Amino acid sequence: MSDINKVVLAYSGGLDTSVILKWLQDVYSCEVVTFTADIGQGEEVEPARAKAQAMGIKEIYIDDLREEFARDFVFPMFRANTIYEGEYLLGTSIARPLIAKRLIEIANETGAEAISHGATGKGNDQVRFELGAYALRPDIHIIAPWREWDLTSREKLLSYAEQHGIPVEMKRGKASPYSMDANLLHISYEGGILEDPWAEPEESMWRWSVSPEAAPDEPTYIELTYQGGDIVAIDGVPHSPAEVLEKLNKVAGANGVGRLDIVENRYVGMKSRGCYETPGGTIMLKAHRAIESLTLDREVAHLKDELMPRYASLIYNGYWWSPERKMLQEMIDASQANVNGTVRIKLYKGNVIVAGRASDTDSLFDESIATFEDDAGAYNQKDAEGFIKLNALRMRIAAKKGR
Amino acid sequence: MSDINKVVLAYSGGLDTSVILKWLQDVYSCEVVTFTADIGQGEEVEPARAKAQAMGIKEIYIDDLREEFARDFVFPMFRANTIYEGEYLLGTSIARPLIAKRLIEIANETGAEAISHGATGKGNDQVRFELGAYALRPDIHIIAPWREWDLTSREKLLSYAEQHGIPVEMKRGKASPYSMDANLLHISYEGGILEDPWAEPEESMWRWSVSPEAAPDEPTYIELTYQGGDIVAIDGVPHSPAEVLEKLNKVAGANGVGRLDIVENRYVGMKSRGCYETPGGTIMLKAHRAIESLTLDREVAHLKDELMPRYASLIYNGYWWSPERKMLQEMIDASQANVNGTVRIKLYKGNVIVAGRASDTDSLFDESIATFEDDAGAYNQKDAEGFIKLNALRMRIAAKKGR
Amino acid sequence: MSDINKVVLAYSGGLDTSVILKWLQDVYSCEVVTFTADIGQGEEVEPARAKAQAMGIKEIYIDDLREEFARDFVFPMFRANTIYEGEYLLGTSIARPLIAKRLIEIANETGAEAISHGATGKGNDQVRFELGAYALRPDIHIIAPWREWDLTSREKLLSYAEQHGIPVEMKRGKASPYSMDANLLHISYEGGILEDPWAEPEESMWRWSVSPEAAPDEPTYIELTYQGGDIVAIDGVPHSPAEVLEKLNKVAGANGVGRLDIVENRYVGMKSRGCYETPGGTIMLKAHRAIESLTLDREVAHLKDELMPRYASLIYNGYWWSPERKMLQEMIDASQANVNGTVRIKLYKGNVIVAGRASDTDSLFDESIATFEDDAGAYNQKDAEGFIKLNALRMRIAAKKGR
Amino acid sequence: MSDINKVVLAYSGGLDTSVILKWLQDVYSCEVVTFTADIGQGEEVEPARAKAQAMGIKEIYIDDLREEFARDFVFPMFRANTIYEGEYLLGTSIARPLIAKRLIEIANETGAEAISHGATGKGNDQVRFELGAYALRPDIHIIAPWREWDLTSREKLLSYAEQHGIPVEMKRGKASPYSMDANLLHISYEGGILEDPWAEPEESMWRWSVSPEAAPDEPTYIELTYQGGDIVAIDGVPHSPAEVLEKLNKVAGANGVGRLDIVENRYVGMKSRGCYETPGGTIMLKAHRAIESLTLDREVAHLKDELMPRYASLIYNGYWWSPERKMLQEMIDASQANVNGTVRIKLYKGNVIVAGRASDTDSLFDESIATFEDDAGAYNQKDAEGFIKLNALRMRIAAKKGR
Repeated sequence: MSDINKVVLAYSGGLDTSVILKWLQDVYSCEVVTFTADIGQGEEVEPARAKAQAMGIKEIYIDDLREEFARDFVFPMFRANTIYEGEYLLGTSIARPLIAKRLIEIANETGAEAISHGATGKGNDQVRFELGAYALRPDIHIIAPWREWDLTSREKLLSYAEQHGIPVEMKRGKASPYSMDANLLHISYEGGILEDPWAEPEESMWRWSVSPEAAPDEPTYIELTYQGGDIVAIDGVPHSPAEVLEKLNKVAGANGVGRLDIVENRYVGMKSRGCYETPGGTIMLKAHRAIESLTLDREVAHLKDELMPRYASLIYNGYWWSPERKMLQEMIDASQANVNGTVRIKLYKGNVIVAGRASDTDSLFDESIATFEDDAGAYNQKDAEGFIKLNALRMRIAAKKGR
Repeated sequence: MSDINKVVLAYSGGLDTSVILKWLQDVYSCEVVTFTADIGQGEEVEPARAKAQAMGIKEIYIDDLREEFARDFVFPMFRANTIYEGEYLLGTSIARPLIAKRLIEIANETGAEAISHGATGKGNDQVRFELGAYALRPDIHIIAPWREWDLTSREKLLSYAEQHGIPVEMKRGKASPYSMDANLLHISYEGGILEDPWAEPEESMWRWSVSPEAAPDEPTYIELTYQGGDIVAIDGVPHSPAEVLEKLNKVAGANGVGRLDIVENRYVGMKSRGCYETPGGTIMLKAHRAIESLTLDREVAHLKDELMPRYASLIYNGYWWSPERKMLQEMIDASQANVNGTVRIKLYKGNVIVAGRASDTDSLFDESIATFEDDAGAYNQKDAEGFIKLNALRMRIAAKKGR
Repeated sequence: MSDINKVVLAYSGGLDTSVILKWLQDVYSCEVVTFTADIGQGEEVEPARAKAQAMGIKEIYIDDLREEFARDFVFPMFRANTIYEGEYLLGTSIARPLIAKRLIEIANETGAEAISHGATGKGNDQVRFELGAYALRPDIHIIAPWREWDLTSREKLLSYAEQHGIPVEMKRGKASPYSMDANLLHISYEGGILEDPWAEPEESMWRWSVSPEAAPDEPTYIELTYQGGDIVAIDGVPHSPAEVLEKLNKVAGANGVGRLDIVENRYVGMKSRGCYETPGGTIMLKAHRAIESLTLDREVAHLKDELMPRYASLIYNGYWWSPERKMLQEMIDASQANVNGTVRIKLYKGNVIVAGRASDTDSLFDESIATFEDDAGAYNQKDAEGFIKLNALRMRIAAKKGR
Repeated sequence: MSDINKVVLAYSGGLDTSVILKWLQDVYSCEVVTFTADIGQGEEVEPARAKAQAMGIKEIYIDDLREEFARDFVFPMFRANTIYEGEYLLGTSIARPLIAKRLIEIANETGAEAISHGATGKGNDQVRFELGAYALRPDIHIIAPWREWDLTSREKLLSYAEQHGIPVEMKRGKASPYSMDANLLHISYEGGILEDPWAEPEESMWRWSVSPEAAPDEPTYIELTYQGGDIVAIDGVPHSPAEVLEKLNKVAGANGVGRLDIVENRYVGMKSRGCYETPGGTIMLKAHRAIESLTLDREVAHLKDELMPRYASLIYNGYWWSPERKMLQEMIDASQANVNGTVRIKLYKGNVIVAGRASDTDSLFDESIATFEDDAGAYNQKDAEGFIKLNALRMRIAAKKGR
């Protein structure tokens, strides 16, 4: 293990990654570079600096990646109406490739041969970090302590921390019984009583949204302006991608919108139970479909729908940096040029309701044709006969043969 | 037009099909057989008998098709988690192939050479009726008056009715401004102010559900028992398929569940705006996904998800009786053998929330593997390294080449 | 029919389109603009000028479209390894959108309100011409004489020709018993004895290739150089796209390569029997797969393969100018950046054999990893255990449940 | 390693598996059960008995699996027109799940806790064996010596053999420089000079076919009778599935048919070069497509084509026993009920040419409609106008908006 001189660690400042930091110093006898990112998890990142310094770290990276995360990862994903297994909005999955990218960039800048992360050997996140890292730097050495060490229980971890003088206060006081992950797009909960799929989550678990019951009795209306498939303004006020997410999270969470409770299939082969809050994302999915319903060609929309589950799996499974995800993205992005217009959304006690959609420039809704009233010849009903007859022809021939 | 002696008409007893009845008698000088079906539209079908008799009809068919509709059409469709364009539950689409089948059966029984229906030349329903009819009897003659006659406006239709002594009371008094269609699965609204996609529907339009605002302040919980992918009991009480739909419609509608407002792409090429209430179906989709999440293999579920949009389009476009729909159904049905268990659903002011899912016999959720706690060797975390390394190999090779 | 003043006719100079020309003048009393294209059909196009002049035509367009056809239509299609129903290389289908485009361009230039073509109402070509035309100019009026007139037999057509003084010599002497269509990519044969799918075509039918039996006893080797997925040189000599097709047609035809005999499914609903010679295209398909096998990522290649049948159907059905075809093309083209290198092909009596493939810059074939010999650690065989174990996990869990 | 008392070894009787047999006895100190199968590899299997006995084996299984292999594995696969990456007929892939199944059956019969095989850690075969084994018996222990031992070169292997008294004559004299695998469907070659993708294989490598050059100068015609998508007779003589393969291999090989030379993408992540002879299979693919072209509905055929690459990957990757492969098979098999009839094939110097196809009972080719002559009203050409107009509608609306 001596050929590694320097390792970049994805460091949150919490207990787990602090133990990892120490363990890397001890076991690998190598220099550790810490990398802490603000991707909108809602916790201060600066405290990680002092903690790292206290552990002797000289190269400390603390980055605000919120705009990059929203602009280059979340927004492109929503252009595809991406949803995994019919339910999950991929809040954790979409953040990992950005972390992988920064880990490799920092390794390149600091001359590190290795990277390390705190994901366990059972989950999807190890896969997402590592597939990304290998794709971006094929010779990178990856240290995944949870797959290597013998600190296989909470007690052993705490005992290791005490032995090595890792401050107890690093552990979140009154630790949540759940394993959580948060970023601008979502917060997730796993473990604890959730390991029983019949158990309903406790109300106290949820952190980003009020319950539908507790939400206001009056609805909230918002208007979203789309350009090229992305939201660029809310209620007429321009916003950057990260601002869009922040603002939508707030208004959605206040209206009880965005809770999810599912059993999902992990890439490593098991089913797991997860609860998620994706307040803003829940609005974005609904609203994006609404603006597409007006501006997208039917067959383009259907092709997107048929490819979406595969695109979602690619992101879920950690293949953001793969050539096939990029190839699909080319197609998805190409479809969005005309996805321009406005969607009016009503939020009420957990409901996201489309209250209107309009596109001056790009609507393909042609009222003169669609009308139930006289259409003045815009559409010739007699055309339908030939349309049906030829579409039926193969079935008629088969029926004549007795099928 | 003299080679048609007898035609079977899909007859509702309303003004439109009464005019059609008369028009067929006049223009085609042929005998008309009427067919009126109860598919759960919530209106009496018996009054159609007297009306038909009054117009001189001798062969009158009035069928209660509710169980057949639920069992052989709605339930198979929900096994696929079918949803058109991400939103529409296909309430109208799924009823048409049953009507087509009965029209042909009656034509065969009565020796009719033709069938007729009241769908316009702009919509999907003409396609669904006629593709079904041609597939089931290739030499059938189809008369679609809306594509033939010159009664192109409401006024002309009314004037024709008056001229031919068709009772005025047949017209629904205070006619709804909307074109509507209803059956056990849904009720739909089109036309009127809905022709402006920016306009929010009036509260008075909706007939089967209260608004979320008007729904009770307390949630309702129900338990659904699945066998082979179908609901067989509610709260432990066995129900037939039609009873399931009726009961779920009631409880969902009372909780403000099931409203939909979309712009959709018709098969004949235009976009149209439709509002739908599918109270029970909205629960069924959510609950079926929940029981599948526990009992279905990952890759089976993903394959179903990828094929679903195509299956949905087939139904939307009228290809229920096509060989490709049947072929897909074979696969879908084969996947459902293990979809057994119970789903607990919470209904609250428009929300359908999965509160629990369980399957004693068929759950693939393995808590001993999924747990965040010590798993006593059920899963070897070291396996993940090889899994990731080989999945990354092709990307590493490409990266070494500078891609 | 009097609101059409000018119509652009796709005019070959043959009997059929000469009759159409005359018929348009008579029935529509409108001015006719003729358009004759050289797309490599192997017949002189200039004679069409005198014929058109003789019939009083003032605006005569004669275009050499060979390079545009090869570069913008044939080559993009081959990037997708396109093949319809496992057999057909789409030689006719790919030429139609170009003709449609030029018809519309000429209509725009000459102020014509209409276009006209000589395709029958039973085939795919009418669809391809007209879908293209409508997509490019939605208000275009299309006159399809074969669907309108009463010249429903060969005799009536000849009689009309005689009556209207259309020169007899226009009819190809000793008319082939087959309906044929040719361009740079292929020549097709339909009708005659081919209408019996059990009948083997007569040797005398084929025009562009010798039979395998008659081909030389010595093989021919050629080397094809690819850049961005397209052939840019043959045996080291740079060639334009049209030259590539011409040259490959020659060498392949001389070696008995490229004959095809199939029953295909037309878009209008019937099965039809067709024979095709696509000598150069047969080489191109095989060689393109070979260079991709070396340079394309696995998952990119598989995604292309899964989407190819749909892409092929789009072209076959006439949707070249549709947004969904263009969207797919974006993805396909994006995949070809690294498809560079050389393929060595052996041609022998109907066989196209890949004799070698190489890419200095872009090969992903890594001999150091693939070798059966000692690989000096390039690949760790132990990784395979974890890879297999986790890929098997879901099946093991299911098996434990007795599935 | 002491908890394994008995292991079932896939034993060919050759040097490699003899060394493995000895190594298992030594290293695992366990009883070994040998299993040798005749799957049509063309080598005697009985000699394996004496060899195993000589090494002290008490439980020796020697099975003739040829009919089961052809009937339950090869034939179902060909119903899907299966081909991996556009070229490979999956000859090796399709045999592995049968071996896996027998290994598990024998383990169950003999009370063995483990199975073992001679596949290396770089290839696909280990995956195919092991995924199958885990799916059929989730607690099976698998010993893959090539991933465990240190006999990493040919020399070490030979030296081990000598040390342990494994007879030298077991080594094939004049060992082929290629790694080969054979069964009823094909023989494969890898390694040696093939590791250079530019190198053309030597003529001497091929074992099952003459070269096209050396094939007879006269063509051979054969007639294949299909029932339910499977060949049941050749030239009118009924044959069992294994007999079909044997007979077609012979006649195809004699006519230079069935050689393949490709670069393929392995599931474990690398590209590899392989040469294959699949004489009979090459005929079967072509002929099956031909009979389907006559008897299968268009959309059924297209759906099969779109799903085929995925089905092929499942088999290539070792997922024969997975639920998703079985689900796809349900659909594929359901499509074959009407695939009945006769195909006439011409074989000539490497070419497989369809010379005729017929189906008295199930042909959907309707000459009365397809004809270029007068069709007496079987098809109304005017229907095409409406068909085209409505198919064009969405594109016309878009074009009016300036797209």
